[in-house]
Amino acid sequence: MESKLPHLGTSIFTYMTGLANQHNALNLSQGFPEFDAPVLLKQRLAHYSEQGFNQYSPSSGIAPLQKQISALIKRKYGLDIEAADTVTVTSGATEALFVAIQAITRPGDEIIIFDPAYDSYEPAIELAGGRAVHIALQAPDYSVNWQQVAEAVNDKTRAIIINSPHNPSAKTLKANDFKALKALLIRHDLLLISDEVYEHIAFDDTPHISVLNDAELFARAFVISSFGKTFHCTGWKMGYCIAPKLLTAEFRKIHQYVTFSSFTPAQLALADMLAEQGEHVDELSGFYQQKRDVLVDALQGSRFTILPSEGTYFLLLDYSEISQLDDMAFCEYLVKEVGVAAIPLSVFYQKAPNDKVIRLCFAKKDETLVEAADKLCTL
Amino acid sequence: MESKLPHLGTSIFTYMTGLANQHNALNLSQGFPEFDAPVLLKQRLAHYSEQGFNQYSPSSGIAPLQKQISALIKRKYGLDIEAADTVTVTSGATEALFVAIQAITRPGDEIIIFDPAYDSYEPAIELAGGRAVHIALQAPDYSVNWQQVAEAVNDKTRAIIINSPHNPSAKTLKANDFKALKALLIRHDLLLISDEVYEHIAFDDTPHISVLNDAELFARAFVISSFGKTFHCTGWKMGYCIAPKLLTAEFRKIHQYVTFSSFTPAQLALADMLAEQGEHVDELSGFYQQKRDVLVDALQGSRFTILPSEGTYFLLLDYSEISQLDDMAFCEYLVKEVGVAAIPLSVFYQKAPNDKVIRLCFAKKDETLVEAADKLCTL
Ligand SMILES: CSCCC(=O)C(=O)O
Ligand SMILES: CSCCC(=O)C(=O)O
Repeated sequence: MESKLPHLGTSIFTYMTGLANQHNALNLSQGFPEFDAPVLLKQRLAHYSEQGFNQYSPSSGIAPLQKQISALIKRKYGLDIEAADTVTVTSGATEALFVAIQAITRPGDEIIIFDPAYDSYEPAIELAGGRAVHIALQAPDYSVNWQQVAEAVNDKTRAIIINSPHNPSAKTLKANDFKALKALLIRHDLLLISDEVYEHIAFDDTPHISVLNDAELFARAFVISSFGKTFHCTGWKMGYCIAPKLLTAEFRKIHQYVTFSSFTPAQLALADMLAEQGEHVDELSGFYQQKRDVLVDALQGSRFTILPSEGTYFLLLDYSEISQLDDMAFCEYLVKEVGVAAIPLSVFYQKAPNDKVIRLCFAKKDETLVEAADKLCTL
Repeated sequence: MESKLPHLGTSIFTYMTGLANQHNALNLSQGFPEFDAPVLLKQRLAHYSEQGFNQYSPSSGIAPLQKQISALIKRKYGLDIEAADTVTVTSGATEALFVAIQAITRPGDEIIIFDPAYDSYEPAIELAGGRAVHIALQAPDYSVNWQQVAEAVNDKTRAIIINSPHNPSAKTLKANDFKALKALLIRHDLLLISDEVYEHIAFDDTPHISVLNDAELFARAFVISSFGKTFHCTGWKMGYCIAPKLLTAEFRKIHQYVTFSSFTPAQLALADMLAEQGEHVDELSGFYQQKRDVLVDALQGSRFTILPSEGTYFLLLDYSEISQLDDMAFCEYLVKEVGVAAIPLSVFYQKAPNDKVIRLCFAKKDETLVEAADKLCTL
């Protein structure tokens, strides 16, 4: 059979985690925490399943979870939303991204994405018959050149996908970015998909700016978040999409035929978790900032250049003083010879620059971070 | 915003379950069991979550579950498959169907489906840029006219979707159906998507015939099943797709960007369940046959004509002696005035025939079935 997607391979995360396991390396590649989900969350999962809540939830999610999500948004971003019409629970943020893209992309549409871009955006756009228009973030600090974005907009442009805090660059968008973005969206009547899965992980007392901070921006946006990142349960594959009523209606048309609904006992458990231990969310930035600092400190003696991490649980390292290998070859060397798995940055680009940069995930125990840094310091 | 899918509304299952709840009716509409998942399965879910298995599984599923699935297939259908290359765990059979359709449907392709058809097939085909070609099953027994199928095949035809035991008709395909199907697929080099989510629910000592019974047929097929139906846990949204290596590779390219992976503790629990209580699977046909018979017996005094149910947990009733309302209006009447929610059959057709037929789900407690039948007997 001829492949419909001959250019698509296996995701870099599957590949590097596979290599890490094979070579028994410290796995700082695929982003997932080495710490467990909160006890309350696990207890409630067990409780609701044991109590017999094992059948389909409504396709949009159970009402108590939708309400807790809207309460969190009110508390954190000051926005009032009508939970029933705007919040849709999904099987992970990946599903939410896929469905949002499918909901708005018609054959021939162009969707602007920023490179380095999370690897699922472009396949989702292509499967919808659209085309991803790549705009590279600018050296040296991964900032957006909004002039360049404006020049890329044309009649076919349908939407822009933003991601802040940004994976893999760990950069956050600032107020002036949102100002430029908003002007552009309104001028050209574009839609917005805002990937905010790291919304609760922003460092150095700089609060995350959400699309939900701005009702006018939200009026044309899908905002996507992830419980896996927030509650250390990436394997639960629970996320959600928030969008105004009309966009939500489009989103749900597709969602109901992609997964229909998500794990019912987990939804009930997450609703309890948000209601009873909301402070977990507020403590996440501090928790991960300490992790970042442990890794950064432990790498001080190394020959890597450490790039700033403003949010997410990722840190970029420039290895140009250490090796002239390309970043994939360097990562393969690291995992096999040094015992540390990382992610090469070039895979997230349409046209990768000549940078020599890798990504480390610091959602790990302090010992793991120090041990990995020690290994990297030998280079 | 102009809708990309203006003709798509809310799934009939969401609509009817909503009405049932609103009117406090016995819900025999959406297909889900009124009995709980096995104790062992729930205990293991709690156990693995408690023990900290809450991070991403591999995108294709955990190896122990893939192996248990392949062992079940070997035992039940005699086929040897290489689990790692052929079994992909998904977030429900809905996701598996969606991904399989996306994996093979190119813009302009035609996919043949049989009406009445499960409601997710056509939107998935359309989202991939393809066109669903509807062939109606034949009155009075919902059989396939293979001559008609052969005439519908042309250069654009890419695949056929079959579903046996069939939802909503409760009809099963027989050996001669598979003979005709196979000849057609080979003659025109077509692919096959076989929706076998009710594979373990086949009645009257007539074993389910699977595509997996025939290695030659399997060579061009995606076979999809559902743990929700088998283990009374529809709300877990766990299913899987089995396909030969090359087709599986195409499937996984898409799956990794739709959901990436599925609920990790549930995968571990399902692997244990299959390993330790495999007899549950073998007892399912008998269990549901008794349910069917309870409902059929209790309806003997009614003015409905009861159609044969050969498999699934559904039963069709012809109400033409009771009412001349169309089936949607009749179902709305039933849920509001009689206190029983059912599914109208016309929604599953491109061109609905003039039949007056509704679908009842008998995956309910005996009391519920008798109570619903008593209400229906008043008509
Ligand atoms: C879905 S696996 C990828 C996890 C992740 O978001 C990352 O490592 O960037
Ligand atoms: C995913 S909700 C629909 C359940 C079902 O398969 C049915 O009722 O036919």
